[in-house]
Amino acid sequence: MQLADATWTDVEDTDTRLALLPVGSTEGHGPHAPLSTDTLNAESIAEAAAERYEARMNDPVVVGPSVTVGISEEHRAFDGTLWVSPNTFRAYVRETVESLAHHGLDRVVLVNGHGGNIDALQEVSARLTRDGTASVAPFTWFNAVGEHSSDMGHAGPLETALLRTEHPELVREGRIEDARQNGSDRWGEWVSGVNLAYDSDEFTENGVVGDPAEGDAARGEELLGLATESLVDVLGALAER
Amino acid sequence: MQLADATWTDVEDTDTRLALLPVGSTEGHGPHAPLSTDTLNAESIAEAAAERYEARMNDPVVVGPSVTVGISEEHRAFDGTLWVSPNTFRAYVRETVESLAHHGLDRVVLVNGHGGNIDALQEVSARLTRDGTASVAPFTWFNAVGEHSSDMGHAGPLETALLRTEHPELVREGRIEDARQNGSDRWGEWVSGVNLAYDSDEFTENGVVGDPAEGDAARGEELLGLATESLVDVLGALAER
Amino acid sequence: MQLADATWTDVEDTDTRLALLPVGSTEGHGPHAPLSTDTLNAESIAEAAAERYEARMNDPVVVGPSVTVGISEEHRAFDGTLWVSPNTFRAYVRETVESLAHHGLDRVVLVNGHGGNIDALQEVSARLTRDGTASVAPFTWFNAVGEHSSDMGHAGPLETALLRTEHPELVREGRIEDARQNGSDRWGEWVSGVNLAYDSDEFTENGVVGDPAEGDAARGEELLGLATESLVDVLGALAER
Amino acid sequence: MQLADATWTDVEDTDTRLALLPVGSTEGHGPHAPLSTDTLNAESIAEAAAERYEARMNDPVVVGPSVTVGISEEHRAFDGTLWVSPNTFRAYVRETVESLAHHGLDRVVLVNGHGGNIDALQEVSARLTRDGTASVAPFTWFNAVGEHSSDMGHAGPLETALLRTEHPELVREGRIEDARQNGSDRWGEWVSGVNLAYDSDEFTENGVVGDPAEGDAARGEELLGLATESLVDVLGALAER
Amino acid sequence: MQLADATWTDVEDTDTRLALLPVGSTEGHGPHAPLSTDTLNAESIAEAAAERYEARMNDPVVVGPSVTVGISEEHRAFDGTLWVSPNTFRAYVRETVESLAHHGLDRVVLVNGHGGNIDALQEVSARLTRDGTASVAPFTWFNAVGEHSSDMGHAGPLETALLRTEHPELVREGRIEDARQNGSDRWGEWVSGVNLAYDSDEFTENGVVGDPAEGDAARGEELLGLATESLVDVLGALAER
Amino acid sequence: MQLADATWTDVEDTDTRLALLPVGSTEGHGPHAPLSTDTLNAESIAEAAAERYEARMNDPVVVGPSVTVGISEEHRAFDGTLWVSPNTFRAYVRETVESLAHHGLDRVVLVNGHGGNIDALQEVSARLTRDGTASVAPFTWFNAVGEHSSDMGHAGPLETALLRTEHPELVREGRIEDARQNGSDRWGEWVSGVNLAYDSDEFTENGVVGDPAEGDAARGEELLGLATESLVDVLGALAER
Repeated sequence: MQLADATWTDVEDTDTRLALLPVGSTEGHGPHAPLSTDTLNAESIAEAAAERYEARMNDPVVVGPSVTVGISEEHRAFDGTLWVSPNTFRAYVRETVESLAHHGLDRVVLVNGHGGNIDALQEVSARLTRDGTASVAPFTWFNAVGEHSSDMGHAGPLETALLRTEHPELVREGRIEDARQNGSDRWGEWVSGVNLAYDSDEFTENGVVGDPAEGDAARGEELLGLATESLVDVLGALAER
Repeated sequence: MQLADATWTDVEDTDTRLALLPVGSTEGHGPHAPLSTDTLNAESIAEAAAERYEARMNDPVVVGPSVTVGISEEHRAFDGTLWVSPNTFRAYVRETVESLAHHGLDRVVLVNGHGGNIDALQEVSARLTRDGTASVAPFTWFNAVGEHSSDMGHAGPLETALLRTEHPELVREGRIEDARQNGSDRWGEWVSGVNLAYDSDEFTENGVVGDPAEGDAARGEELLGLATESLVDVLGALAER
Repeated sequence: MQLADATWTDVEDTDTRLALLPVGSTEGHGPHAPLSTDTLNAESIAEAAAERYEARMNDPVVVGPSVTVGISEEHRAFDGTLWVSPNTFRAYVRETVESLAHHGLDRVVLVNGHGGNIDALQEVSARLTRDGTASVAPFTWFNAVGEHSSDMGHAGPLETALLRTEHPELVREGRIEDARQNGSDRWGEWVSGVNLAYDSDEFTENGVVGDPAEGDAARGEELLGLATESLVDVLGALAER
Repeated sequence: MQLADATWTDVEDTDTRLALLPVGSTEGHGPHAPLSTDTLNAESIAEAAAERYEARMNDPVVVGPSVTVGISEEHRAFDGTLWVSPNTFRAYVRETVESLAHHGLDRVVLVNGHGGNIDALQEVSARLTRDGTASVAPFTWFNAVGEHSSDMGHAGPLETALLRTEHPELVREGRIEDARQNGSDRWGEWVSGVNLAYDSDEFTENGVVGDPAEGDAARGEELLGLATESLVDVLGALAER
Repeated sequence: MQLADATWTDVEDTDTRLALLPVGSTEGHGPHAPLSTDTLNAESIAEAAAERYEARMNDPVVVGPSVTVGISEEHRAFDGTLWVSPNTFRAYVRETVESLAHHGLDRVVLVNGHGGNIDALQEVSARLTRDGTASVAPFTWFNAVGEHSSDMGHAGPLETALLRTEHPELVREGRIEDARQNGSDRWGEWVSGVNLAYDSDEFTENGVVGDPAEGDAARGEELLGLATESLVDVLGALAER
Repeated sequence: MQLADATWTDVEDTDTRLALLPVGSTEGHGPHAPLSTDTLNAESIAEAAAERYEARMNDPVVVGPSVTVGISEEHRAFDGTLWVSPNTFRAYVRETVESLAHHGLDRVVLVNGHGGNIDALQEVSARLTRDGTASVAPFTWFNAVGEHSSDMGHAGPLETALLRTEHPELVREGRIEDARQNGSDRWGEWVSGVNLAYDSDEFTENGVVGDPAEGDAARGEELLGLATESLVDVLGALAER
């Protein structure tokens, strides 16, 4: 159930404690992928998992409205990138979950599509869970797709593949070659296990890391399937808590 | 230009200082209208105004991603209502605008669809403008539709009318009678100019204030036209600053 | 009962839950009216209402010390204007009310004389009331004087009239003509329902809005009577909560 | 010059950088002295010093509106005591001084009448001075009256004496005997230089420390003279900075 | 018992509510004494008092890890001086004590070696005690050594004496003459009881106040004895609360 | 150069921009290892790297005082564990580094020994570096020891090995068997890549993860060598920035 489309009476009639909150970003994803890539991908997986869980368990799952501006200062060199500070992001997510919990929706998975949000979501989830407000799990889709995970970059094969499956009209295929040529093959500037680069333009000219050509729609379909299954598992684990 | 759909290179190629940021809410809007009513209506007007301004002035306007969770604690009695504290809301909007301004998008209208956000948006706009970060104007559509404004309630004639024009599939027509019967005709509990009710369930049983039957699609079309024209005027005024 | 003049034992001997907290400002009010205009006017009405309520109901009302520095950054162009940020103002008022409530004075009206404080007082009142700390009502006198309210400006007919009744020695009658000549007849710079001016010197040369000559002592007497009666009504409503 | 009574044009016409900000409290001062004792005494000395300095140096001194609610939680057991947290108090005083400095009033003495405010005023003064906002000196009158200082208690000889000189009508002479009998002769509960009592009712039954009978109007006059002279000296030192 | 050296099982096996938290600083102490002087001295006394108390009362006392960076901005002119803001310092100490109290160690003395920390520790102790989190006493050793206290300066006789007893290898004896020559004999720049100097380099060239030659190891031994006895008394008083 | 032992004049005489700040924790490390394990290990490596760098490059490196209380709430079930909130920890570390930078020590490595601090140190390092305050690198020793890193647990082989080399007297060898028996072999409770356990006692009975018997002093020596070399590399990289 999409919370945005429902009426409050629909929610009242729904008997569940399970909710998903997609968390994305608005940030440069190369010349070929939209600024909303992380949000769209998080939404695709949240929606698919809610449907699969509902079908399988016969229990409803509420999907909240996406958080669309995250911790993206690292991409500020790329036009249109929006961001808030970690403190504000944490507060915004935490209080949104508190209001979900106010209505009894207190088994919540934060379905994340942006690497820069991970630490903050971990901190928020721990706080809410320890306080007894809700049982909250942070889930970052590209860390839950098996062997594929090691191919994650930025606007690279995984993210582009998922977009191609779910939002092909938003991938500028004509610019893929440009994306490959001027991108980078590694995130960061590493010295003995420490990344000395805080902004992504220090190591990628166009904001791309990894080869988007290696992520076609078929791979996107597979990623969607794997991430959805993982998320369904997490929902199941929370339901039993 | 929808920022969410654009790539960073698209934004780089766009020569403008004008941006719109839709600000809505996720809150109960009676049994007939979706929780996202305020967000959807703000988006409808932002999009229409961006298009009209671009067509008329031949200058692009960037439309940012909507803020979907606002200051809605007053509706917490109605299931699915989400909210953050005023402090967090102010920080989230302020920092988002600061990141717009980082890219030179420093003539910003906050296109608001929720009464509970008005005071906070005024405070944020003043702060950003006085600090010289950006020229920011808070625009609440239902206060800029001429005589209609006096009919504003909550999930009443104006909001329902606009939905019927732009998102008719989300209006539960079969529940309109219910919405009318159990709603209220006035917002608040007033004593000598002071509203003593802080939560809406103190004066409306189902969250409705005003008669949604008095807002058909034709009226919605008229409201959209009036609000769009008002917003275009505000954009014009900011462009000259 | 004026809290400032009372001893703690006097307060201990007073059996009431009702308190008034005058909230004013220190800000430019034209060449003819003192910087403390808003504070003085709030105090006049608070004192009159406490007396009338006590006389009528035979129940005491405690009047706290005035908050004299408010949210007045908008008048910073006029010398001597003092202000604090909205966050600090909210905290200062909120905590002061919390300490009133600590002593059982938990039916509190914030008696306000400054337009710039209104939003913040509304937010604070909602917070304290929802938290169960106290039942708090924000009362702005010039919004509770019937038809007169539409004549409100700044250092204009209403504020000057009330001063002339209660503090005639502080009105510089010899500068009234100057006040009229170099003032403005409207607050703000409006475009389609949006005020684009954040500082008052953008639209008034000497800080005056409205004609102070139209506010003689007789009108002041009438305003005092109307506002007092309104405030007594609000006290009565709180007493019944 | 009392800022409260002046118009902004009066302030504009005044050529000075010197300002005094009285800082008091609203807190129990025994059965015989008003809750506003600390504020009244701070005001008496500020006013006298401004006049003496102006007379002697032919330079004006601006006296701001008093801060009337301070850090008084320690007296919360005594009815009517109001307080804010140290953080809020610091912010309120700091921002008020920042607004004084905005108008060029950047040589500021905080004229304090309450022991509980001392540490916070020291911290604020250091911050403002180090930041270059203003040269700020915290002045607590009862620490600048020579040998008398060692007699300071609470609502005891010094405070009562000063009230008797300047506000005799507010001293309840008929309750002095009661004040003496049920008061204490020492502030705090000391063990090896550490005061283990955080609230004053742990060591004084009626909030009095010291004997108010030992502070007649003549002594008050002397205290006023000594404190005024000290404050004039501090003004002189700031003027030379 | 030194908490740092113990295992958690050792702590579990210890039956006590008493804890000491040494609080020092890292700041310039002249050419002859180390930046850690305040920390070392606080530790010396905490350790000695824990041992004496345990020996005398047969009850264990836990000694926590020292807070080594305090409120030392006043010494920023001297290289290597580290500091945090008062707000951060208060939060760090408060939360550390809250975690001690979580384990039942809720009779806590803050054993302080730096004058600049005193006000903040007083505020924190009051907060924790009033909230019922723990009974907390702030103890500053050089204020609990009888007549010696009046000789306190900075890097002067008292601090140097204690170092000479406990850490003689860290006192650069060859620079004592230099320390004396270029030091000052008074802290601050005083006008009528107000210190107008916020940074120590305004009144001491090398950061020394007082004559370090007047503090030999024998005097250090005496100071250690006096301070230890005072602290044992405070522990005893807390134990009875 | 140990900052704690140096005088301010020693620091003044030292020509370098390089500083190390050890960051540890005070938290349960099983029945065999001290609460200060993370601090001690961070200090061992910081000290060794400073010495090696100085020897090799002939350039001094300043080692600051350790942060001894970190983000350890996850271990609160184990007695003696101390912690502060992430916000307070971030502020304390950030401001300490700001004061290092004030003296020109603006190439700073945070030498970390505790997993729970990693995210916060990353956030702080990014903030300080982006603000231009200092070039800051967060270095966590057990992530920079090659293949060994995969053996990291908690109070397991790596941490115990390093202690055995540098602080053998603090390892309770007689309790190693107990540590092994009642420990766990994996950190966390994982479902599809998400750790649902926020507190360590949910998955380890005595706070141990991994087998401490597999970390003898020889391995500790090797770890020290590897981590030291890595840290020297990071220092070198910062020196060139």
